[in-house]
Amino acid sequence: MASNGDDSYNRNLWRFKGNGATSDAAAVTLRKLAFGMFKNCSLNSGKTVLCPTPGDPNASPSFRTCPEAEEAVAAAARSRMANSYAPSPGIFKARRAVADYLNRELPAKLKAEDVYVTGGCNQAIEIVIDSLSGNPAANILLPRPGYPHYDARAVFSGLEIRKYDLLPTRNWEIDLDGLEAAADENTVAMVLINPNNPCGNVYSYDHLTKVAELARKLGIMVISDEVYDRVVYGDKPFIPMGTFASIAPVITLGSISKGWVVPGWRIGWIAMNDPNGIFRYTGVVQAIEDCLDLTPQPSLILQEALPDILEKTPKEFFAKKLKAMRRNVELSCERLMDIPCLFCPKKPESCSYLWVMLDTSMLNNIKNDFDFCSKLVTEESLVLIPGVALGAKNWVRISIGAEESVLDEIFDRLKSFYIRHAISKEAIKFDGDTINLMVVSVI
Amino acid sequence: MASNGDDSYNRNLWRFKGNGATSDAAAVTLRKLAFGMFKNCSLNSGKTVLCPTPGDPNASPSFRTCPEAEEAVAAAARSRMANSYAPSPGIFKARRAVADYLNRELPAKLKAEDVYVTGGCNQAIEIVIDSLSGNPAANILLPRPGYPHYDARAVFSGLEIRKYDLLPTRNWEIDLDGLEAAADENTVAMVLINPNNPCGNVYSYDHLTKVAELARKLGIMVISDEVYDRVVYGDKPFIPMGTFASIAPVITLGSISKGWVVPGWRIGWIAMNDPNGIFRYTGVVQAIEDCLDLTPQPSLILQEALPDILEKTPKEFFAKKLKAMRRNVELSCERLMDIPCLFCPKKPESCSYLWVMLDTSMLNNIKNDFDFCSKLVTEESLVLIPGVALGAKNWVRISIGAEESVLDEIFDRLKSFYIRHAISKEAIKFDGDTINLMVVSVI
Repeated sequence: MASNGDDSYNRNLWRFKGNGATSDAAAVTLRKLAFGMFKNCSLNSGKTVLCPTPGDPNASPSFRTCPEAEEAVAAAARSRMANSYAPSPGIFKARRAVADYLNRELPAKLKAEDVYVTGGCNQAIEIVIDSLSGNPAANILLPRPGYPHYDARAVFSGLEIRKYDLLPTRNWEIDLDGLEAAADENTVAMVLINPNNPCGNVYSYDHLTKVAELARKLGIMVISDEVYDRVVYGDKPFIPMGTFASIAPVITLGSISKGWVVPGWRIGWIAMNDPNGIFRYTGVVQAIEDCLDLTPQPSLILQEALPDILEKTPKEFFAKKLKAMRRNVELSCERLMDIPCLFCPKKPESCSYLWVMLDTSMLNNIKNDFDFCSKLVTEESLVLIPGVALGAKNWVRISIGAEESVLDEIFDRLKSFYIRHAISKEAIKFDGDTINLMVVSVI
Repeated sequence: MASNGDDSYNRNLWRFKGNGATSDAAAVTLRKLAFGMFKNCSLNSGKTVLCPTPGDPNASPSFRTCPEAEEAVAAAARSRMANSYAPSPGIFKARRAVADYLNRELPAKLKAEDVYVTGGCNQAIEIVIDSLSGNPAANILLPRPGYPHYDARAVFSGLEIRKYDLLPTRNWEIDLDGLEAAADENTVAMVLINPNNPCGNVYSYDHLTKVAELARKLGIMVISDEVYDRVVYGDKPFIPMGTFASIAPVITLGSISKGWVVPGWRIGWIAMNDPNGIFRYTGVVQAIEDCLDLTPQPSLILQEALPDILEKTPKEFFAKKLKAMRRNVELSCERLMDIPCLFCPKKPESCSYLWVMLDTSMLNNIKNDFDFCSKLVTEESLVLIPGVALGAKNWVRISIGAEESVLDEIFDRLKSFYIRHAISKEAIKFDGDTINLMVVSVI
């Protein structure tokens, strides 16, 4: 609404003000950062904005959801079964379908009652973090680099954040010694992201066993974010953390957003992998169920559609997407060779990103990753995520889950940007050993 | 999951526990109360459970959503326009459509940017309450009786609750003197529910003018919950509070849940009626936008469908529903005459409830409204909402937005319950004056 100009008359009249505490938490969200960076840059390139995002309406069938999923939603909307209020934990048939979906790979089977349906994986994160807050001394261990919604919600809920490192020289395995050193008697949980956003690795059975044993030693739960469970295209299999729930209890978070390329639909889950009943007697189950009563419910249309989506999607849909991802990884890594200021220490085997180190010493007038990404938007209309948003300075996340033509355009623009900013011709020759050392010191 | 029996071995191992603070907040939600009451009662009646709820899949066309709305959702699911992440405030076309919908009745027009799309009106409540929290001394004025999600979220966010009364002897108008007495220099907002759940009245232009003037005098905003704006069937017109936004700024909350009989779909809005720009300079706009970054987004499928739902639903759909509601009110009030322990001081002109006073002195072995409703579930398998859940002891909310046959069944069961519990035949004659006095004293 337009102001009618009587501000001066009004200014001292009003007693309310906005909650400033929300700013601190929101500032670290990817949404705020990505939309904010884009909004604050003046576009000078004359090019259309390129912000590769899953669910692009113009994507080819490899990166577009399947008709079976679309029809499941359309049928639910017309079914009349999706119009009334749902119980807070979700409708039974949706909880049952998620349990069945996850049980295919779990030794200790989930019951429907062990599953809660949420509005995507982000809401699953919000509910789990809220349900562990309340003790002002408590802290949580988060990976560096990692998905920042955990950070935002921990700040919002007053849960202290402690970081543990992922090691680029060891295929992005967890620094277990560092994790143990970061924990104390007030640590309540560690978050594991597997398949790993942004690094693109999957963890081995042996490494996950060690994680579970360390969690048990520390007396903490493992929150395992497996939202990329259907985007694994390397040689190593994905092992769900719930496999090790008899060693330490595991809360698994997931959704259809990545596997079905529909992040806008907003349907996901929380699964309590806990054969020893620890979550019940520690009050975690009760706290989660209380939070579910207090927070938005996912649309019942999506809940009603979820069983068909999980059960009726043909295998070929996933196979086609993974094949396209394999091709994209090769193509991206090859194109990256032309842009020496960016270096990828490990070819991804999962997720849809290249996670690359930025060497600012090769560039004129680029202070850091944020500066790099901001100028990239201004000069090339290309939106990438600066590493600092994921906890790692002077790294950059490049989305590669897109058409070949879009990928080409991304790397064309990156190259053009690099050439414009390169310090000298000498600098563009890169020395693998030096960069490897830098990878370690930067993290 | 089944326990494997090593609880004793595990008990002292784990350092985490659930957040107990969530229980206090969740305890006052309608979801917890309604589902909990039902779950905790043993059903002895042999009858099927009757829990009248909007969106019943078996409802007749009068209480079923329109095909235009269903088709809008089905088309959105297939459109490929609803698959990617949406900006936190909602997509522009949905914000524009809500602004247009509300502007039909507003003198100072909303822009699309004044509207935020939410996962139903409950999420709108959550976001607005969160955005006003942060100052531990702040308090908010809530109506008694009123919708308890405001209470739950204020408890959750640490915002002090102060109640103002609605007056049954004055057509449920606000006790403005009491409201003024309850406010102090730390009061930030008052919540108005209009059309009024549970009382079923709509407020007059004159009364709303007084509300706006009092809000201005107190320096507080008005949060106007207008979720029942399409369920008004009496002689008095519904006046949106935004009409008075030049006197005091108004945040309007709404959704399609009640008007379109689809509470399960979960799509609603927050509209900032503020021609003087007060919300911006007090940081309220910023706090709301921060909260939107931190909380679940409504499904983009529903956002994409919203313009067609708001614009293409034929008038006849609403006319048919309102006609059925008028008939239901007459039928219910007539049937209520047979149940003297329940008394409705004011015939509803909006919403879908009878809000009735309970006289426990006419009943054997019924302590209060909660006891009444609990025994009603046990003995008659009928779920009604006890007044205490809405802040008023010894009142009961009866849902009447249902088929005629369902209404008949509700009142048959209520009568059978009454006859079984009536103290004596004398007691069933009721005295209008006595009850009127009680109405006033109970509130």
